[in-house]
Amino acid sequence: MSVLGRLSLNQATVKRLGVAEAVDLCVRHEIGAIGLWREPVAEAGLATAAALVGAAGLRVSSLCRGGFFTHADPAARAASIADNKVAIAEAAALGTGTLVLVAGGLVPGSRDIGLARRMIADAIGELVPVAQSHGVRLGVEALHPMFAADRCVITRLGEALDLAVQFPADAVGVVVDTYHLWWDAALPADIARAGERIVSYQVCDWILPLPADTLLGRGHVGDGHIDFPPISAAVAAAGYAGDIEVEIFNETVWDAPPDETVATVRKRFPLAF
Amino acid sequence: MSVLGRLSLNQATVKRLGVAEAVDLCVRHEIGAIGLWREPVAEAGLATAAALVGAAGLRVSSLCRGGFFTHADPAARAASIADNKVAIAEAAALGTGTLVLVAGGLVPGSRDIGLARRMIADAIGELVPVAQSHGVRLGVEALHPMFAADRCVITRLGEALDLAVQFPADAVGVVVDTYHLWWDAALPADIARAGERIVSYQVCDWILPLPADTLLGRGHVGDGHIDFPPISAAVAAAGYAGDIEVEIFNETVWDAPPDETVATVRKRFPLAF
Repeated sequence: MSVLGRLSLNQATVKRLGVAEAVDLCVRHEIGAIGLWREPVAEAGLATAAALVGAAGLRVSSLCRGGFFTHADPAARAASIADNKVAIAEAAALGTGTLVLVAGGLVPGSRDIGLARRMIADAIGELVPVAQSHGVRLGVEALHPMFAADRCVITRLGEALDLAVQFPADAVGVVVDTYHLWWDAALPADIARAGERIVSYQVCDWILPLPADTLLGRGHVGDGHIDFPPISAAVAAAGYAGDIEVEIFNETVWDAPPDETVATVRKRFPLAF
Repeated sequence: MSVLGRLSLNQATVKRLGVAEAVDLCVRHEIGAIGLWREPVAEAGLATAAALVGAAGLRVSSLCRGGFFTHADPAARAASIADNKVAIAEAAALGTGTLVLVAGGLVPGSRDIGLARRMIADAIGELVPVAQSHGVRLGVEALHPMFAADRCVITRLGEALDLAVQFPADAVGVVVDTYHLWWDAALPADIARAGERIVSYQVCDWILPLPADTLLGRGHVGDGHIDFPPISAAVAAAGYAGDIEVEIFNETVWDAPPDETVATVRKRFPLAF
């Protein structure tokens, strides 16, 4: 199978499209898998979204996303856990085995990063039996450290893995995202150590300058500074043989015609190997 | 000695001032040490700068900065090493035992981060005998990973330390800067492991949102999200008893009256312990 057979379009790359349009786009461009997001799935309706991807014969590589467990208010913490249980059920209904988690930043009003990390571990512990009963694995995603304060205190693959291995392998794994992790000298060793805990591999490029909204600074593969082939080789050597998502947050990409964006995604994808 | 006795004003915090004005400012605010930068030292003249700090009775906690070793062109690499030898001599002339190094980003035209790292190690190796002969230690500074592509491929204290320990302890150490390192779950362990290799401790805060120029997003201690006391305690427990620099890159801080800035620096400094 050509590497293109493993390409999955993460829906965030064509953020302006609903599920139906994104599914059509994948079919039109012979992309066999899609990474869905909860918000557009909710807009389409869960059953409708599941029917759309099923009818198109698409694999759903992941559902994005759960997490955001760090709250000062116990009621807000409980609500986030309840919402993550719903997300697990949604993932199962959509036919994907992976729910991506963005764990959450510092607890509002606190600078105690250890507190935030403990709160995340506790929340995941509560979700484990639900994940297992649905046959869904939670994918802990380490985000780039520039998001540590406000979005995700888990900042390295090694840290995500140290968290994941506290739980059964059929319930919790890790996400490898080149954008967030490429700079880490320990990345090759941590990927090898992750082995079968890798539940998702996402690629996009690190481009400069960073935009005013640093969430939106991602580039097409090849437009930036990341040396993808060694990372992809390490992920393959670790045993990951699943779909590979292209996930690009970038206003310019979003403003481009989706067919053009996806043509670029397809054209650039082989450069990552 | 009160902790204020260890406060050093890094000159970058009052970037608009020349050496003479910055020295006067320290004297006026009873700050016993200063971290100097090469550019304003050159403007003042090396001998004049040394005489100014000497006459004021100030300790020079460090000279910023050497480094930027990653160049595709061998002549440019050689020039950077030659320039770093000059910087070592300048540090010695100014009476400081520490030259801070910002190692450099990816080699222009290359995505091979390993190549950049090897180039940095080779350059430091060339500088070691010069540093030893001048009684100056090179302080390898890990920068925040958001600067990995364009400024410094050394992104974690542990990585800086793995590099430093390849060389004699009297020649190469590491810089601990809260702004760059606070997010790292391995930071406490890496500080302990660094021990006497710590040659500089710098504090400033991580504030949000990041500005358009992410180099300039640093805040006064207490204005942001960093939990300083555990980091300061770890640095102290590791054996570092030297000066502690406040180094703030921020246009708003630079535009404020320097006396006001330094009054805030003094007032906030004890909050870091």
